[in-house]
Amino acid sequence: MNSDKHMDLLNKHEADVRFMREALRQAQLAFEEDEIPVGAIVVWGNKIIARGYNQVERLNDSTAHAEMIAITAAFNELGSKYLQEATLYVTLEPCLMCCGAIFWGKIGRIVYGASDAKNGYHKYINSSVNPFHPKCEITSGILADEGAQLMKDFFATKR
Amino acid sequence: MNSDKHMDLLNKHEADVRFMREALRQAQLAFEEDEIPVGAIVVWGNKIIARGYNQVERLNDSTAHAEMIAITAAFNELGSKYLQEATLYVTLEPCLMCCGAIFWGKIGRIVYGASDAKNGYHKYINSSVNPFHPKCEITSGILADEGAQLMKDFFATKR
Repeated sequence: MNSDKHMDLLNKHEADVRFMREALRQAQLAFEEDEIPVGAIVVWGNKIIARGYNQVERLNDSTAHAEMIAITAAFNELGSKYLQEATLYVTLEPCLMCCGAIFWGKIGRIVYGASDAKNGYHKYINSSVNPFHPKCEITSGILADEGAQLMKDFFATKR
Repeated sequence: MNSDKHMDLLNKHEADVRFMREALRQAQLAFEEDEIPVGAIVVWGNKIIARGYNQVERLNDSTAHAEMIAITAAFNELGSKYLQEATLYVTLEPCLMCCGAIFWGKIGRIVYGASDAKNGYHKYINSSVNPFHPKCEITSGILADEGAQLMKDFFATKR
């Protein structure tokens, strides 16, 4: 790998970490409202255009996941129902529903933090099919420990 | 099978057909608004408590599927984010996103019409897992020809 390419990758990783910190801030807001602490943001052209955190309890709507809220906010912000140029950052592996929403929104890139063995999409999806838009790029594990720790702390308060 | 049991099944099927006609009416509304014609209703205690049709274009939101709208309306109507006693009728096999929404809402029974080889959940789900709530009952093929014909008629207008 030449040094330019190496720098590009380093810069991309640094940006991912910076944006994931913003998603974690959203997850923290959920935690403070006694919601399962998952947060998401949508980035477009290096700018945050939408934010969301889990609001299942507050909205009394079991589909009000962080990703759904952030994606719908991004559609509204851009006036477009497709987000090919956007990146969704989310602190936890998306569930099946959010995986489908990412597909329909044609989101260009997904960056998630911690894996979710119980409800994450990997548990359900047939490994021979790609549930996302064909050009969608997936990066996982960014600040995964922080995202997972928030979840652990939350469920510890419920015992 | 004794005749009581037989009558129960006949009555159940008749009710399914009657409610699916209502879902088809919702799909027709989508068609008239130049939306992909899918309609859904939620039934609880033999009463329709929520209706929805595809509004992806009108709301400029690629997640605004008939099922998502009907399910969220049902949460609002009942003031509950779980619908264990409810049946969702939808004119087309649910996609991955709506499949996940049905899971999270713990919907007790799903009745759908036509299969959707392109975007239906069967295409994606690993056959060894159940993507729905463990007690969820699935019935398919109710007024499937009518549901499929609406779709064909719609896409014929697009050519």
